[in-house]
Amino acid sequence: MISDQNSKKALALHKKLKGKIIVTGKIKNLRSSEIKLIYTPGVAAVCKEIYHHPEKKYTLTSKGNNVAIVTDGTRILGLGNIGPYAALPVMEGKAVLYQEFGGVSAFPICLDTIKKDEIIATIKAIEPVFGAINLEDIESPKVMEISDELEKSLPIPIFHDDRHGTSVVVLSALLNSLKLTKKQLSTIRVVVAGAGSAGYGICKLLVASGCKNILVTDSDGIIYKGRTANMNKYKKELGDITNSKKEKGSLCDALKNADVFIGVSGKKNLLTFKIIKTMNRDPIVFALTNPDPEIKPDIAKAAGAKIVATGSYLYPNKVNNALVFPHLMRAILDKRINKITMKLLLVTAMAIAKTVSNRELHYEHIIPSMYDKRIQKNIITAISKLHLK
Amino acid sequence: MISDQNSKKALALHKKLKGKIIVTGKIKNLRSSEIKLIYTPGVAAVCKEIYHHPEKKYTLTSKGNNVAIVTDGTRILGLGNIGPYAALPVMEGKAVLYQEFGGVSAFPICLDTIKKDEIIATIKAIEPVFGAINLEDIESPKVMEISDELEKSLPIPIFHDDRHGTSVVVLSALLNSLKLTKKQLSTIRVVVAGAGSAGYGICKLLVASGCKNILVTDSDGIIYKGRTANMNKYKKELGDITNSKKEKGSLCDALKNADVFIGVSGKKNLLTFKIIKTMNRDPIVFALTNPDPEIKPDIAKAAGAKIVATGSYLYPNKVNNALVFPHLMRAILDKRINKITMKLLLVTAMAIAKTVSNRELHYEHIIPSMYDKRIQKNIITAISKLHLK
Repeated sequence: MISDQNSKKALALHKKLKGKIIVTGKIKNLRSSEIKLIYTPGVAAVCKEIYHHPEKKYTLTSKGNNVAIVTDGTRILGLGNIGPYAALPVMEGKAVLYQEFGGVSAFPICLDTIKKDEIIATIKAIEPVFGAINLEDIESPKVMEISDELEKSLPIPIFHDDRHGTSVVVLSALLNSLKLTKKQLSTIRVVVAGAGSAGYGICKLLVASGCKNILVTDSDGIIYKGRTANMNKYKKELGDITNSKKEKGSLCDALKNADVFIGVSGKKNLLTFKIIKTMNRDPIVFALTNPDPEIKPDIAKAAGAKIVATGSYLYPNKVNNALVFPHLMRAILDKRINKITMKLLLVTAMAIAKTVSNRELHYEHIIPSMYDKRIQKNIITAISKLHLK
Repeated sequence: MISDQNSKKALALHKKLKGKIIVTGKIKNLRSSEIKLIYTPGVAAVCKEIYHHPEKKYTLTSKGNNVAIVTDGTRILGLGNIGPYAALPVMEGKAVLYQEFGGVSAFPICLDTIKKDEIIATIKAIEPVFGAINLEDIESPKVMEISDELEKSLPIPIFHDDRHGTSVVVLSALLNSLKLTKKQLSTIRVVVAGAGSAGYGICKLLVASGCKNILVTDSDGIIYKGRTANMNKYKKELGDITNSKKEKGSLCDALKNADVFIGVSGKKNLLTFKIIKTMNRDPIVFALTNPDPEIKPDIAKAAGAKIVATGSYLYPNKVNNALVFPHLMRAILDKRINKITMKLLLVTAMAIAKTVSNRELHYEHIIPSMYDKRIQKNIITAISKLHLK
């Protein structure tokens, strides 16, 4: 899906830049008189102030605007376990977007360990400098266990972009798609292909938003309560909260009369022309695996899909969490939110969805562009209303 | 020593800035066409390139320009163990100087643990993102053990500023002081007060530079081979490499006929008018403890000290490692040096010393200003000649 031309351009640009991020001081052309204030001896007064009033770490240091983008390199893009060094370009790219779109200081932390306990211990150890942790591209279900443990023990929010960010952008796109196809969340049949971090997050948020008929599939077919093969704690939870009729079978079975397909499977060409033909009227197809979606948009369209979205810039309707994380993190940091809740994600999804006005809404424009400045404003307004803190 | 006025100004500035550092992208006003290259999908080609050619992590990412400033908050300035949160303003200040004077991207890592093994494990885990580690304000001798262990196991240099940086700036200042007082390194008697990281580093570098008569003192007096009270592995080493005559006694005894006093004791007013009177002709007094030196410069001068230096901006001859670390780190990163050796420190000290020309050299100007652009040039030239890599 990535052209050779694009790859060459990307390599050339990275070679020229020698790293995409830089840590700088906020005061330019420091004068000697300023050094005495920001460094020794003047800084001692600031240290003492924080020592005596710990909450001032948020007003006197960069902690409240710093985010650690933490990965162990085990599940980078569609490339799999390529290790922490090869993972760094992605994390740097993410840091660039965080600053560019959210004004957030994000720093990559690529770990030279893939052991769960060591990852947890490291993140706990480095917490003092950060206002939030962004877990990124760590294999599932390990990453969920890491997230659960950190949520329990750290005072700062654990944002798991593959789960939280993806779920928000998917729900946003779905809300607007339903508007166009005149269907209701509460009555549609949704099939989520993929039960990793993204699939789990999407199901949880769909349930929280009132969606009642959800089926999740993995390589062993539909997940149902009581299934024993290829399960883990999180898939078990999915079995409990979806598929109330305990349907069994393949992805193909699941999609019969379904209204929505949401692909986060990591599998190219998982969905076919024929299967879409078995779906309900005006099918909605989100084939979100990158870089190669579960089905090519032109095939999905030809099979009758009314709305098609991918995670790629090559097509209209780019459902990508880059639309979410810089803006949502800005709100999280500003509002000093210490836990990512379903309510928070729900209002964020609705805020993003409504950024596309009825006049702008169209089958090929179901979500806003990431350059749309209204997104952040809408998210902050919505989250402020929550009075979470 | 810090005026209330200065403290107030420092607090006000920190409150206004809300953190002194920021992580930004190198490309400003990112266009959509650039996002495709620095982030998904284009970035995948860069990840693959590093995966297949690991050495390219230095040319395609920011690793080669990133430094972690790591502290556990146990020995911050003269404030002692104030913890990782209160330590952050100092580390941020240091990061600002790193960028301003060295073009280095330094990021603070303040650890929520003071356990040696956890500190070591954390630094090992985060290594992939950094081109060097700067250990900062961690209590001794723990920090030396941490440094030793990391030097053995990590492929990147472990720069211990309290030790390495201080030793370099002290030797630079001493070399120029000896020029002025017409004495020789090989024949002078030097007393180092303080056997922590700084004292250890200074002694090691003095020995490496050809100084033959060194005495080190701590709260138990002169350190000598075979002393048993209040010793540790590093003090034992100092007993082995200094004080060949196994002199015993107090700081007072040590300073009789000494040519040089180097104070890194952390003790205000440790040195007195009377003791200086017992030193050799043209005494050199470096009272480097911050914020309050071992003796006030005017008292030292009145007692006959020919050259007086402190670590403070309040007096002439500011012997502070801020003169060293941004410039030396620039050279370390550019030359891809993976170990801090005595030879490296020695040529750095000589390079800094010679930055002050004979015409500029004066009793109250023994070292250059940190704004002097010749420092970095001279260090890089000197280190290039070493052909370390």
